[in-house]
Amino acid sequence: MSNTATLSVLVQDSSGVLSRIAGLFARRAYNLESLSVGPTERPGYSRITLVVLADSAAVEQIAKQLNKLVEVVKVTEMVSGQTIRRELVLVKVKAIAAERSEILALVDTFRGKVVDVAVDSLTIEVTGKRSKVQAFLEMISAYGIKELARSGQVALGRGSKTITDRGRGDSGKL
Amino acid sequence: MSNTATLSVLVQDSSGVLSRIAGLFARRAYNLESLSVGPTERPGYSRITLVVLADSAAVEQIAKQLNKLVEVVKVTEMVSGQTIRRELVLVKVKAIAAERSEILALVDTFRGKVVDVAVDSLTIEVTGKRSKVQAFLEMISAYGIKELARSGQVALGRGSKTITDRGRGDSGKL
Repeated sequence: MSNTATLSVLVQDSSGVLSRIAGLFARRAYNLESLSVGPTERPGYSRITLVVLADSAAVEQIAKQLNKLVEVVKVTEMVSGQTIRRELVLVKVKAIAAERSEILALVDTFRGKVVDVAVDSLTIEVTGKRSKVQAFLEMISAYGIKELARSGQVALGRGSKTITDRGRGDSGKL
Repeated sequence: MSNTATLSVLVQDSSGVLSRIAGLFARRAYNLESLSVGPTERPGYSRITLVVLADSAAVEQIAKQLNKLVEVVKVTEMVSGQTIRRELVLVKVKAIAAERSEILALVDTFRGKVVDVAVDSLTIEVTGKRSKVQAFLEMISAYGIKELARSGQVALGRGSKTITDRGRGDSGKL
């Protein structure tokens, strides 16, 4: 985790913008650890949160390249200590009767929720920082993970400033 | 929301796979509402959850096209009633002193969490089905949304089966 950077990218919606952004990462063979795209408070704009394995020189380059794309309104690197990061995981685990209460205790410890129950499995939702989600998955893997779906990391800056008030790679387009 | 479909796509990690998938949507001008990519329980594999505005004939086409990509191991349409869907939102709202207790009551109603406090704003985390997240955002917007970051939708099938046990577009690659 030492060399990951989180970038928040505000973009104008277009059918091609994600393709161009993903293409930029592919051409340079930057390794994307996670990516999530969702609508924002402004109709017509989406916010993309990217976690990329790269050192700070590479991140600088990436931000520059992203800023050249016409649909990109703003790129901000989300800096440790000034950022709230969360992710969500849904995980389906094997749960034989004898182990069910142990699993439920673990879910409770991580303030997770059981969202589906089957004869031989439980589906659990956990949210939190990556380290918490990772720790939960390591603990629960002892019972056998059948499958999981993990949102990319989502991030907002601490304090009252917003992405358009701050940050590196200000393209001045707003 | 009537014409959205959710697709779960299991892929082998490669720097180009997301670019190819996004390119496929861009070329056909399919409107992606959300997308999230995260690691899975199997090293070297990621799971992409896509929400696309498309009717069932178009979804069939999309699944076929996705299956042609070499990195795509499995494509499944996540069907209503048999699927658990969750998303996460971080939202920063204006919070003047006089309105703070009202906002906190609303957060409580939606079982949200306050994750950051500033002099004139609060940052709140809410998770749930899209309809819940949407309802929360509508209510909280009365106070003034400064910014928000929303994960794409994440989905797992109900019951004990997994994506590799079921679904349309089975490419037989596993």
